[in-house]
Order: sequence, then C-alpha cells, then structure tokens
Amino acid sequence: MNSQLRVAFQGTHYAFSEIAARKYFHEDITTLPCRQFTDVFSAVEMGDCQFGIIPVENSTTGSVYQNLDLILDSRVTVVGEVQLRIEQHLIANPGVKFGDIRVVYSHPQALQQCGLFLASLPDIETIASNDTAGSVLHIREKRLLHAAAIASRQAAEDNHMLILREEIEDNPENYTRFHIIAKTSETPPDANKTSIIFSMKNIPGALFKSLSVFALRDIDLLKIESRPMRGRRWKYLFYLDFAGNMQEERCRNAIRHLEEITSFLKVLGSYKAADE
Amino acid sequence: MNSQLRVAFQGTHYAFSEIAARKYFHEDITTLPCRQFTDVFSAVEMGDCQFGIIPVENSTTGSVYQNLDLILDSRVTVVGEVQLRIEQHLIANPGVKFGDIRVVYSHPQALQQCGLFLASLPDIETIASNDTAGSVLHIREKRLLHAAAIASRQAAEDNHMLILREEIEDNPENYTRFHIIAKTSETPPDANKTSIIFSMKNIPGALFKSLSVFALRDIDLLKIESRPMRGRRWKYLFYLDFAGNMQEERCRNAIRHLEEITSFLKVLGSYKAADE
Repeated sequence: MNSQLRVAFQGTHYAFSEIAARKYFHEDITTLPCRQFTDVFSAVEMGDCQFGIIPVENSTTGSVYQNLDLILDSRVTVVGEVQLRIEQHLIANPGVKFGDIRVVYSHPQALQQCGLFLASLPDIETIASNDTAGSVLHIREKRLLHAAAIASRQAAEDNHMLILREEIEDNPENYTRFHIIAKTSETPPDANKTSIIFSMKNIPGALFKSLSVFALRDIDLLKIESRPMRGRRWKYLFYLDFAGNMQEERCRNAIRHLEEITSFLKVLGSYKAADE
Repeated sequence: MNSQLRVAFQGTHYAFSEIAARKYFHEDITTLPCRQFTDVFSAVEMGDCQFGIIPVENSTTGSVYQNLDLILDSRVTVVGEVQLRIEQHLIANPGVKFGDIRVVYSHPQALQQCGLFLASLPDIETIASNDTAGSVLHIREKRLLHAAAIASRQAAEDNHMLILREEIEDNPENYTRFHIIAKTSETPPDANKTSIIFSMKNIPGALFKSLSVFALRDIDLLKIESRPMRGRRWKYLFYLDFAGNMQEERCRNAIRHLEEITSFLKVLGSYKAADE
C-alpha cells in the first residue's frame, strides 16, 4: 500500500534528500526528483505527490533559509522530521587514480562541507553542480577520467563508481535535518515538536517576553534563531521549535499569548521529532 | 599615518571583504589577501597585520559558522563591525555577449545568492572558485570568451571588465556583516555591542533562564542563535549579541550571572555596532 506513496525531493536519485526520505518512510516509496526546491513545493501543492522532503538545517552550514522562506509563503504543513548523518565521499570512474583528478564536481553545500579537504588540493578546480548525486552521473556519462564528484556512498555504489577517498567532510558530526511537508491541516497523533516563525514588534526586551510565553507554561525550547530583515530597522524574523504539539491546550495558549506581542506569526506544523 | 594599518582578508583584491575593510577604516589601509580564513587569523595572531576582517553573517545564507568556530578557538578579539550590501554582477571580458556564456565562475556563497538567476539558465555550467574577485581575474587572465564571473562592481571596473547583467542576487536585501578582529584585550571607547558564545547545561528552561540575566538588567538582545552540537545529546551552542559593552558594570554582572548557568562561555569582544 505504501508503495503508492509519492514523495518529491530536490536532486537526482541517490541525493541525500532521497536517502532521508527512504529513512523516514521505512517502506517502499515512489520518489519524484525535482530540479529546484520550488518544484518540490509545487508537486505537493498541486497534488502530484502526497509528501515532499526538504533540508532545513545542517550542523556545519546552518539553517537553509531558502526552504524556510518557501514554507513561509506556501500552503503546506510540516508533518514530519528526519535527520541524516551526511558522509561525503570522493567518487570517480573505475580505473581513475587520485593523482589523475584535476577537477571536482558537487553541490555548493557539499563543496563547503569538504572545504578543508579541497583546500589541501590547491591545483584542483571545483565545479558547482545542482546536486551531489547528479555530479556522479555527470562524470560517469561523460566518462571523465580527470574528474571526481563528491556525493553519498549510495550514489557511488548504485552507479558502479569508485570511492577514491572516504568521509572527506571537515566535521564528522555533519548532520542534516529534513522536514516532511504535506497539504494537510491534521496534526499527526505522535507529534511532540512544533515549528513556528514570527516577527517582533519593536519593544525593548521583546524577545525575552516572547520566550516567557513558553517558560510560563513549562514548554521547552528546542531551537531559536533570529534573522535580521535588513532594510527594515529593528525588524527580525524568529525561527523557533518547541516541545509539544498544537493539539495540547498549553501549546495553543502559548501561541495565543505570543500573538499578542508579535506582529506576525505562522505555525509551520506539529510533528514527531527526529531520532537523535 | 593610517596608511601603515595592515588588514588581512580572505580572497583576492576587490573581494567583498576588502571592500568592507575600506568602508570600515575609511582611510588608506594596506590589505593582505589570504587564501583561507585560517590564514586571516594567523596573520593577526602572528602580528603580520594589526587587524583582520571576516564575514560572520549574510542575510540570505545565514551565519558563517566556519568563522564563528575559528574565533572560538583563537586568541583574537572582535573590536569592530561593518555591514555591506552585497550586489552581485555577471562579469565578462569586453566584447563578450550574454548569449556566448556557457560557464559561470564564482564563490559558492555568491552562486547560492544568485540561485534564481542561475536556475533560469539551465544550460550554463557553474564553477566554484575560492573567491568572487578571483574568478574575474581567472576569466580575464585566461581570456575566456564563453565564461563569466559573479563578483562586485569594483572587481569588474578595476579589471576593465564588462558587466553583462547587474544586481543578479535573488534578494536585493542581501547584506553581509563582517567582524574586525585584533590581538588585544582593550574595549574600544565607543563600544555599544558585545558578542558572546556559550553552551548550556542540560536543565529544562535553561535558555529562558540564560536570557533572563539580560532582561533583569534591561539589556537588549540583538541576535540569538542556537546551534545543535550533534552527537552530544541536548548540547547546544548559543551565539548571542547584546547592546552594551564589557566596561559597563551591568554587562559584567549579567555575564557573571550567565556563567552560573552555562557549561561554557566566551566573550568574543565589545565593539561599536555597524551602521544600519
């Protein structure tokens, strides 16, 4: 039955988003590769897919504002979360030796995550591609013998490619957190975490007051991030995750209280937190 | 006199960091281009330069964790701040037409900031380089006629190159905030902002308690960001900026109070906040 679940993701097959989707849904799913993140949102909003998966935070490179902005403007809800350790590998065509490599292809985020490794190879050119797994396909299809790609182990193995160097990411504690999005207003029954975005009125100590609505109700905060909205003096967007779901009265009360002191507030969704 | 000031930055001449350094110091300075951010820190720690400049936050792509991590581990202090609107331009050799372009070079962050523009050109390959201005030098020196670079107006004009498309960044409100670093323990006399990094003991509501040390003393918060330290359950690093400097008794008291409830705390420095 689950094989009829269709999940949209950005990238080509064996991209980290697709690996994360399979980890989240456990069983067989049909995945729809999309060129851009906006296409993932469209696929869900138009009903082509029941679910979409989008990266929202990486432990090395931080929040993915692009996707947080897209959620803000969309009609989808966050219904799930999954976390994946991101191991990056240097991948080449079979027979290619490390010394042959003159150019390395990958997604800009992956290139950044392997910055120290790449900096140790000053004579190698790095080429930014649309996704990690796609860069493996590129060097395979063009049979490039002086090129390598940075991508997942799966992308190497399933394309019968060679891993030249393993785990080349700067920080082995390199995790990405993904949100599962859907067009629904229902809260999953096992939801224990809620994500919201709000902006503050210009009052001193406003941030402290906004956090007090949770502290007063013994609701734990799991993440907080302020993002300056440049060009609008003293205007900030806040990204906040808290423990609890919108079916709970204390959480609904906290949000109602928060609305009194914010100029804008959107609940992105309640969902079951990813396992650590 | 000021012409003897030496300032280290990452990138080649006309990089945004160098433009920001000239904006901050107003007068003539001697700049030292460095290949990596670590080289900027070394130049300051070894005394080669009195100052270094490093990007710490961009309004589109978020905090630059790499530099926040480097400050954490270094013996330098943040002594100043400057903010720069980042306008990205598509730059080519004179005589080249837009339709000739097959490949675009730039820094991965710049490529990300121009993601929508680049996505509208699906047949163009993007090549990640070490810095924006360096990519202009690259296409000029190699006289590439089917390539363009993404960089600042200054990088185009001072290299006598052609701007093919202006302001191609996705979001015109694209600002980067830079820190000025130095090997000193002195607080500048006009300092009105302080940056700290701390991590929390595992107690419920700990974040609220940590913010209360500022609220109780009417100290305004200017930025807060939590960063999960994966692999260490419930351990978070917090990046916090507040209004005030460490010469003020209420600020020193707040920090002393905060030390009671944190497992780690480092004051990065007090400095004059950048103009909006």
